Amino acid sequence: MLRDLGSRDREFLQTVAEIREGLLHLAGARGPEYECVLMQGSGTFAIESVISSAIPRDGKLLVLINGAYGRRLAQIARVHGIPVEIVEIAENRKIRAEAFAIGKGVTHVAVIHCETTTGILNPVEEIGEKVAAAGAAYIVDAMSSFGAIPLDLERARIDFLISSANKCIEGVPGFGFILARRAALEASKGRARTLSLDLHAQWAGLENDGQFRFTPPTQVLLAFRQALRELDEEGGIAARADRYSRNHARLLRGMSDLGFETYLDAADQSYIITSFRYPAEPAFQFERFYSQLSELGFVIYPGKLSHEACFRIGTIGRISEADIERLLGAIERVISAWRAEKD
Amino acid sequence: MLRDLGSRDREFLQTVAEIREGLLHLAGARGPEYECVLMQGSGTFAIESVISSAIPRDGKLLVLINGAYGRRLAQIARVHGIPVEIVEIAENRKIRAEAFAIGKGVTHVAVIHCETTTGILNPVEEIGEKVAAAGAAYIVDAMSSFGAIPLDLERARIDFLISSANKCIEGVPGFGFILARRAALEASKGRARTLSLDLHAQWAGLENDGQFRFTPPTQVLLAFRQALRELDEEGGIAARADRYSRNHARLLRGMSDLGFETYLDAADQSYIITSFRYPAEPAFQFERFYSQLSELGFVIYPGKLSHEACFRIGTIGRISEADIERLLGAIERVISAWRAEKD
Repeated sequence: MLRDLGSRDREFLQTVAEIREGLLHLAGARGPEYECVLMQGSGTFAIESVISSAIPRDGKLLVLINGAYGRRLAQIARVHGIPVEIVEIAENRKIRAEAFAIGKGVTHVAVIHCETTTGILNPVEEIGEKVAAAGAAYIVDAMSSFGAIPLDLERARIDFLISSANKCIEGVPGFGFILARRAALEASKGRARTLSLDLHAQWAGLENDGQFRFTPPTQVLLAFRQALRELDEEGGIAARADRYSRNHARLLRGMSDLGFETYLDAADQSYIITSFRYPAEPAFQFERFYSQLSELGFVIYPGKLSHEACFRIGTIGRISEADIERLLGAIERVISAWRAEKD
Repeated sequence: MLRDLGSRDREFLQTVAEIREGLLHLAGARGPEYECVLMQGSGTFAIESVISSAIPRDGKLLVLINGAYGRRLAQIARVHGIPVEIVEIAENRKIRAEAFAIGKGVTHVAVIHCETTTGILNPVEEIGEKVAAAGAAYIVDAMSSFGAIPLDLERARIDFLISSANKCIEGVPGFGFILARRAALEASKGRARTLSLDLHAQWAGLENDGQFRFTPPTQVLLAFRQALRELDEEGGIAARADRYSRNHARLLRGMSDLGFETYLDAADQSYIITSFRYPAEPAFQFERFYSQLSELGFVIYPGKLSHEACFRIGTIGRISEADIERLLGAIERVISAWRAEKD
């Protein structure tokens, strides 16, 4: 992070190449079938890049929704005047292939892999089979799952997978990335509705001279190269999945001991992030809970559900079971102090 | 850069607030008249944010062009289907107010302050007077000048000024910023053609809870806060202008001694970046020149002119006259070695 390489510097160009190859390798997609494109901005910028670049003027997008991030996919399409159909199901239910039909005129189908609203994991392979059978292109937002939940792009029939530097790869924020089937990427030429987020032009630029079309966040990219190397040293996706799973199991056990209930059934729950219902405790106030934990060094997430009062705790990042145990200790102290106040 | 604050963390929110206030202060625009919006991505993302958010569906943009960055403004408008008129003059001429007319239906006028294609400085105050008289809104791309060339937003009648973290403020790349007249910003509500680059929504989000709508590059923002503090310690814009001017004067003197000619007349030249013509030297090859200087630790820029063979040397950033002298020494060594080869 403290090195200042020029964006045309040879070592920087090698860094970009190493990142693009490393991401394809992680996805088991080495070779000519898939390509990797990096896009400046947050993960949402990378998603908007795909939606606003891949769908032709006479196309139509079907969005499968069970949370806020799914709704955002539809919102992006609508902003660009892209015809959208949605299938929206309850936030505590996985989207199964039998839950939707692919109507006439639908050219692209989009879904969230791990819907961070709840932490639910959608069956992207099962959905992909149905999308492929209908001859549509398949867009998967794997923002919070890629790098920690094994996923075979080819088997899931994915045309565009989108994720971000600062989630399971454990980089710092500043860019997102797209793993795209080469044919789908080539088909998107000339379809873009923006300049900055033009996916095909961004890819063509990187292929042409290894450079970004517009100034890249060089320090963030150097940090990401290091993050990829550390993921490899840890043992790749399987080892990371194992660490996050242990974090998650420890959290569930501890929170259950403290009397908290999860929003989702255990079978539907990913080990990425977990929604807990507000406790019956009358003294419970989320804002106070959040800031007291924050003062103790633990940052949790507010809820994002439409209908239920929940908060969320992430179990990804450079943390281990020992950190989870410290978090549980902090939660216990905060709750106990409240009870003492009341008495 | 090495601190990892959460994007909802109190200190991070204070950092964002300090940055927004600091930028307005730099522009002499404290108070209710102007607002500051930060936008993830490169400077081009921030420019596209303004063009795709500010101009109404029945609006028209006049772009004043004397280089590649001006052409890019027009390109962005065209991608979004925004009606565009252009006035394009020679790359070695400043755009004076008498060089263009503001036709019927033009609602917005855009120009580059320092056109980095050549290093020329356009008279944005003179242009702004004409734009204001015509009742149009005024967009100034001050990417490579803001923070080092004094500019009074109010006097230049600017509605939207755009710049980037990694130019004269000397931050690292990862976001751009927009200083906008509050009324012009409010008028842009509902006009955006994208989600990620929606200028009004980004502003409303920052105003609402101090947070970015989508994950910000937290480390880059922390570095930028430090850069603003260092600019203040150096003595503000006047002191930075002075240092860059001295860098530039030293460069011109040294390059002239080495037999190089500038592309622009001295009177039209900014102290930001300078275009030099390829020397008559038959052995001169830009790629070789670039990589030999790079090996010696100096990164220069290729030319970007339509009609002339030039390279460019920037004189901004954390550098002083001593660095310029070292660069001149390196150029002399490279050129001498070529002559020795030939002999």
